[in-house]
Amino acid sequence: MTSDLAGKVRSGDRRALARAITLVESTRGEHRGAADELLNRLLPHSTAALRIGISGPPGAGKSTFIEAFGLHLIAGGHRVAVLAIDPSSPRSGGSILGDKTRMAELSRSPAAYIRPSPTAGALGGVARRTREAIVVCAAAGFDVVIVETVGVGQSEIDVAGMVDLFALILPPAAGDELQGLKKGIVELADLVLINKADGDLVAAAGRTASDYRAALHLLSSSTADWMPPVLQISALTGKGVDSAWDEARRYRGHLGEDGLAAKRAAQSTAWMWREIEAGLIAALRGDAAVARQITALENKVIQGITTPSSAAALILAAFRGRA
Amino acid sequence: MTSDLAGKVRSGDRRALARAITLVESTRGEHRGAADELLNRLLPHSTAALRIGISGPPGAGKSTFIEAFGLHLIAGGHRVAVLAIDPSSPRSGGSILGDKTRMAELSRSPAAYIRPSPTAGALGGVARRTREAIVVCAAAGFDVVIVETVGVGQSEIDVAGMVDLFALILPPAAGDELQGLKKGIVELADLVLINKADGDLVAAAGRTASDYRAALHLLSSSTADWMPPVLQISALTGKGVDSAWDEARRYRGHLGEDGLAAKRAAQSTAWMWREIEAGLIAALRGDAAVARQITALENKVIQGITTPSSAAALILAAFRGRA
Repeated sequence: MTSDLAGKVRSGDRRALARAITLVESTRGEHRGAADELLNRLLPHSTAALRIGISGPPGAGKSTFIEAFGLHLIAGGHRVAVLAIDPSSPRSGGSILGDKTRMAELSRSPAAYIRPSPTAGALGGVARRTREAIVVCAAAGFDVVIVETVGVGQSEIDVAGMVDLFALILPPAAGDELQGLKKGIVELADLVLINKADGDLVAAAGRTASDYRAALHLLSSSTADWMPPVLQISALTGKGVDSAWDEARRYRGHLGEDGLAAKRAAQSTAWMWREIEAGLIAALRGDAAVARQITALENKVIQGITTPSSAAALILAAFRGRA
Repeated sequence: MTSDLAGKVRSGDRRALARAITLVESTRGEHRGAADELLNRLLPHSTAALRIGISGPPGAGKSTFIEAFGLHLIAGGHRVAVLAIDPSSPRSGGSILGDKTRMAELSRSPAAYIRPSPTAGALGGVARRTREAIVVCAAAGFDVVIVETVGVGQSEIDVAGMVDLFALILPPAAGDELQGLKKGIVELADLVLINKADGDLVAAAGRTASDYRAALHLLSSSTADWMPPVLQISALTGKGVDSAWDEARRYRGHLGEDGLAAKRAAQSTAWMWREIEAGLIAALRGDAAVARQITALENKVIQGITTPSSAAALILAAFRGRA
């Protein structure tokens, strides 16, 4: 059954693609075996696509940019899939429907596929399902897979760990106004896009771009071999959308085949270990007697009565004694 | 025996202090029980000290600054302990002896205590021992405990997770020269000190300070309530050393009692979970049959034959089946 589904996905059957992603996103335990089988069939056929993560604060214009960017790519003969992670809204929530509406033209193109966020839940679970949906879309022949995430919670870090290129979209800062970015996010970026460089905001966008260029210069290690470019764009007028794609291709060329393979291998093994850690911690917390010990010892650590190391040793001993 | 040692440490006996730190730093399994007992005795008496982490690239002048800073504190009636983490050098290595020599005046003061790095080893182990040595020094009545680390590897992140205030020392950048900082380090800082603002470098230090001030402004979340100050100092002439202490006290006041307690509780529980995770992973890797599976599955993940999630599930199942 998964062999049949895999074949249809690879042949470009859109209903099969939707079914495959639904299977992969399913949280029902009995679907997991089939989902894993399907994914392992598709995985070897998923390497050709370029995976691009796009993040930024609410109001930066991510959806408008993705629509313009996607249409530009399609005009150039590409096939584009867009996946969204929005940890703040459930599936039926307004912002996802809003995304679909805002990407109306792109979503009508036969060369595009737009998939809203999976049902909200444990963010790690959402990230896992998006990571796997990328594989399905790439195997279905989309040669550019875009993952959009709103700048909230852990999601940018998750997305940066599943894409080849991570782009940050920012609005122009008016004078001294702060951007409200989470710590560490700018340093994940391979490409920074200052959006809304149109109308009254052209000058502000220019200043913001110089500010970020200077900041990235200070923050980038002298041994790093890629200095993230900072572009001024307007998703509204289309200005700079082509340059964003040029820079994405330049980054892809910079990575090379070996660099890309190494980056993906490192991301995949990091993810494997993260899932192993999460599974071990879940097993530890799932043991009722150990869980009681955890609560008591965690409180002692918080109160400064027991050192973290002693508490950890006692919890591990309790778990091993019962495992 | 540990009750006796704890009493002597608390009374300010320097030989007992050295013995206590040696016990805590011991890697011999049979010492662990006594070390944990000692630490749990001292822990409730270790809260009054302010813990300051100081990091920066090699050549930034960390030791010279710590000597000047420590002498300034002692002149103000404080008692200062200095612990060093240097993951790059073994105990008997040149840089540690160099540190002691460079802090010659401070190390002669009866109100100061300087302890070189523990023996190099697993960095997590070094961080654990330093974290515990802080407790011993604080319980011994040192009201300022400074942890110095060189900007290499994981050590800044470890140190930022064990101190109340994390300060970054940087040299002035000559013109366009990059600082060579690791990603993410600047964003750990509660205080940035641009050193060597003396002689020919005054102008360069001024420019570097403005550059970092602008960068921190862009990178700090608008919801963050502490904007890290950037000071120009000279450890050589003593310029700004008093301001560095003023800012440290201002940060302490900003945190307040509840804020400090919350920060320390969060650091301690994060550390407890990190040790639990490390212990679980060590148990998993320590099982020979599971370890063989890990190697095989990790290779399949790297080659893109198996998804990270499938591999993680198989490894967890193998471990649970045998545990």
